[in-house]
Amino acid sequence: MAEKVTIATVARQARVSRQTVSNVINSPHLVRQETRDRVQAAITALGYRANQAARQMRTGRSRLIAVRIEPTRDGINGSVLDRFLHGLTESAEVAGYRLMLYTATDDTSEIGAFDDLLAAYDLDAFVLTGTDHGDARTAWLTERDVPFVTFGRPWDSPERYCWVDVDGASGTAQATRRLLATGHRRIGYLGWPAGSGVGDDRRVGWLTALREAGIEPPPDLDRQTPDGIEDGEAVARDLLRAADPPTALVCASDSLALGALQAVRTLDRAVAVTGFDDTPVARAVGLTSVSQPLPQAAAHCVRLLTTVLDGSRAATPAHVLLQPSLVLRQTA
Amino acid sequence: MAEKVTIATVARQARVSRQTVSNVINSPHLVRQETRDRVQAAITALGYRANQAARQMRTGRSRLIAVRIEPTRDGINGSVLDRFLHGLTESAEVAGYRLMLYTATDDTSEIGAFDDLLAAYDLDAFVLTGTDHGDARTAWLTERDVPFVTFGRPWDSPERYCWVDVDGASGTAQATRRLLATGHRRIGYLGWPAGSGVGDDRRVGWLTALREAGIEPPPDLDRQTPDGIEDGEAVARDLLRAADPPTALVCASDSLALGALQAVRTLDRAVAVTGFDDTPVARAVGLTSVSQPLPQAAAHCVRLLTTVLDGSRAATPAHVLLQPSLVLRQTA
Repeated sequence: MAEKVTIATVARQARVSRQTVSNVINSPHLVRQETRDRVQAAITALGYRANQAARQMRTGRSRLIAVRIEPTRDGINGSVLDRFLHGLTESAEVAGYRLMLYTATDDTSEIGAFDDLLAAYDLDAFVLTGTDHGDARTAWLTERDVPFVTFGRPWDSPERYCWVDVDGASGTAQATRRLLATGHRRIGYLGWPAGSGVGDDRRVGWLTALREAGIEPPPDLDRQTPDGIEDGEAVARDLLRAADPPTALVCASDSLALGALQAVRTLDRAVAVTGFDDTPVARAVGLTSVSQPLPQAAAHCVRLLTTVLDGSRAATPAHVLLQPSLVLRQTA
Repeated sequence: MAEKVTIATVARQARVSRQTVSNVINSPHLVRQETRDRVQAAITALGYRANQAARQMRTGRSRLIAVRIEPTRDGINGSVLDRFLHGLTESAEVAGYRLMLYTATDDTSEIGAFDDLLAAYDLDAFVLTGTDHGDARTAWLTERDVPFVTFGRPWDSPERYCWVDVDGASGTAQATRRLLATGHRRIGYLGWPAGSGVGDDRRVGWLTALREAGIEPPPDLDRQTPDGIEDGEAVARDLLRAADPPTALVCASDSLALGALQAVRTLDRAVAVTGFDDTPVARAVGLTSVSQPLPQAAAHCVRLLTTVLDGSRAATPAHVLLQPSLVLRQTA
């Protein structure tokens, strides 16, 4: 077999530096036509990564997609975005793109990061996560004609943007229906404070499934708390000590569900509990939980982006709403 | 307050396109001198990101560091590299660098990825993880004069490369000493098959701490198995059913420790268990575990790299060996 063709081989053949070959591939319009022709001839003659190089020369794009990574968190729910990030890297690579990471503390600082990144790198697109009401990021990028897709619905105007999301209401409805099917009637809900797109969506599934079964959702079992194990435990403890306690709890996250489980065990009650996100912790402790198809969500994000980037930008933004599944374990 | 200065403002002032401003910042040597001067004058006049832009123009570097991300894994131990990645992104940003991600299935495919990345992007450096004996990556990068740092010792020739690592032997020694201090004498070890740098290092801590206490490490309690909850459970079950079972088990990972815990609970024994990596799962189930200082490790990796990249490449490669700490919980 012939020696592997590297950028050095191309550089030797074209009698230019490695840097020049790299420039021809990355910023062809900046290299003199004669040099560019010589390098391209060497690339063709040697069969050097012909597809990738040819594609880059045609499009003049960097094949870089930027995505935000959360600051170091040792919590449980961060694992969802980590798994999404792994899937995104893999799907992007298959499509010939690489991911660049950035951090931000809120939407405003994220817009600052957009500006910095667009100035310093020749980025093709962004993947946004953590969508919510009043999101200023989508409008900012749209005004500047920067392609993006959101993982999570842009809650204020989902029809205007490209997005991929997982149907949260369907997830909690599946959990609630499972509890109904096993005989539960007093089913409570542990969710986040009203007003968040994701939180409100997950609560709707509980409401819907109970009403389908002819049960009016009991206001005394409909609780809100910030996300966290301790918060979940405190609210669950309060619910379980009430005069008419629930026999089951549907939770908006695995963190809340783990807290609820601790309350159930401390008070020694036979109360079923379901979580949301199917984290490694849920698997380790046997928690029934709603699983999001994260690799598929990541693949759809890359597909929507590459459709836009390949020039066939559709008149109507594309949307993908994926169905989650309930993973049954000991707790329900 | 004046309007925020963006790349568009600079482009207007210099009467060039946004793309040209970006090129001046990223690849100044490719832009005509006259244009470059005009853009730089506009940058200076407007005070546009003066530091970052000036630094890039001086060094001609991309300020991009590449790091491998593992394929989607739903396991427990993957969370260590995820937390390291978060810390790395944060530390790199503070130093003015961005991270680019790539995937690889083994060292050979990772070297293929190096070649692709170096051809397609103007990368400054790599951060390597998952070091082991017979690692071909370090030599490959060194031959091509590509700066890198490894998180994990380059086990075959640690003196030759820049690296940051956490002292695994110290971690298992701390766990073993803790068990000795609480009265245990029959302390077993659940580790990985011999031959891996990290695994052998962690086993040494157990051996050392026992010998310090005047106890010859019992060969019947020194067990090896591939990493995984089921594997850990099988070996622990076998140990606990022996004629002279251990009263405590030091494990090379949280996965093995979780398996051991399941065996302990199923067989209803009072056996102490310690894990390694202090994963979210360890916290959720109350497992005593060795914690790696991952944000610090990430910060040291960036510091070593920037020292090399800033031109003050030391004659001797720098090394940092960090001390882990034992996080005490219910299981030991």
